[in-house]
Amino acid sequence: MTMEFARRQSGALPGSPRPFFLARGEGEKAVLIDSLFTVLLSADETGGQFGVFTMDGPRGDAIPPHSHGTHHEIFYVVHGGVTVFLDDETGTRQVRELGPGDFGYVPAGIVHSYRIEEDQTRVLGVSSGGFERFFGFLGEPTTATGYPSEPLGLPPRERFAEAGQRFDTRFRPDLRMDS
Amino acid sequence: MTMEFARRQSGALPGSPRPFFLARGEGEKAVLIDSLFTVLLSADETGGQFGVFTMDGPRGDAIPPHSHGTHHEIFYVVHGGVTVFLDDETGTRQVRELGPGDFGYVPAGIVHSYRIEEDQTRVLGVSSGGFERFFGFLGEPTTATGYPSEPLGLPPRERFAEAGQRFDTRFRPDLRMDS
Repeated sequence: MTMEFARRQSGALPGSPRPFFLARGEGEKAVLIDSLFTVLLSADETGGQFGVFTMDGPRGDAIPPHSHGTHHEIFYVVHGGVTVFLDDETGTRQVRELGPGDFGYVPAGIVHSYRIEEDQTRVLGVSSGGFERFFGFLGEPTTATGYPSEPLGLPPRERFAEAGQRFDTRFRPDLRMDS
Repeated sequence: MTMEFARRQSGALPGSPRPFFLARGEGEKAVLIDSLFTVLLSADETGGQFGVFTMDGPRGDAIPPHSHGTHHEIFYVVHGGVTVFLDDETGTRQVRELGPGDFGYVPAGIVHSYRIEEDQTRVLGVSSGGFERFFGFLGEPTTATGYPSEPLGLPPRERFAEAGQRFDTRFRPDLRMDS
């Protein structure tokens, strides 16, 4: 584990199953490219069961298609809109634009991608415990309360590979889901 | 398992780990007293890991203090406001009013209660897998998309006892947390 990752992990959250509150904007925060990811709860507080995070981002491009080996994941739109692309268990592509209050579920093994459709979008995510720190591992820690006005650069290719291995995530550069 | 509970369980959700989407207002819905609970995801879809639900309710009274034997639970406020009362692991009472974007975590074993502070409040909840159907078990199934204009009656005392046993929840009528 790198020093900076260890420091980030020991940040805003208690790290054990005790009660706590966070005000909006608090949590373990990182910027990945154009979005702000905030971990509200991690596997450390839930005995490995689940993690909770928010994603705040602007209208943008679809993220690289990928699947998780063992982690399930949800999308719940708080503000704005996001299109979720997935290949279901029969390989049939499903594409759905989600608005406020809409919900999507992507179980382990399902190849998926998403694209934020509106500025000031906020999505609440829940994942099987452990995956919630994927975004912080790939991104840069921040104390900002919103997403950056100019996107950061793409993490280096080897960092994606390391993140994929550490968080049991398989990127699929052979696929394009948004066209 | 009662027939009506079996029917409710086989409702809107797939019942196995496959991808799906729900539009706002869809899901497995029940009214409990003055609030609408909508299960978006259950233990059946996550291999028992976690469940996701929303609570829509009006300004009201604090619910009976209780604790869960093994289930962790979160509160994430989407609209409106809710006050969460809890006795932490040292027995110290914590009281926090949560507004939009605020977050609270109540791990297993922690006695807690809450009170909705504003009409049209929506809270997103996540629990360890299995607890998400507590509200539907105690309440009445519905196809409505909002909470009732007049509260339903309190479920009978024996139904509370059955719900407590089935969902590993201990009610604490000996405690009052909101004063």
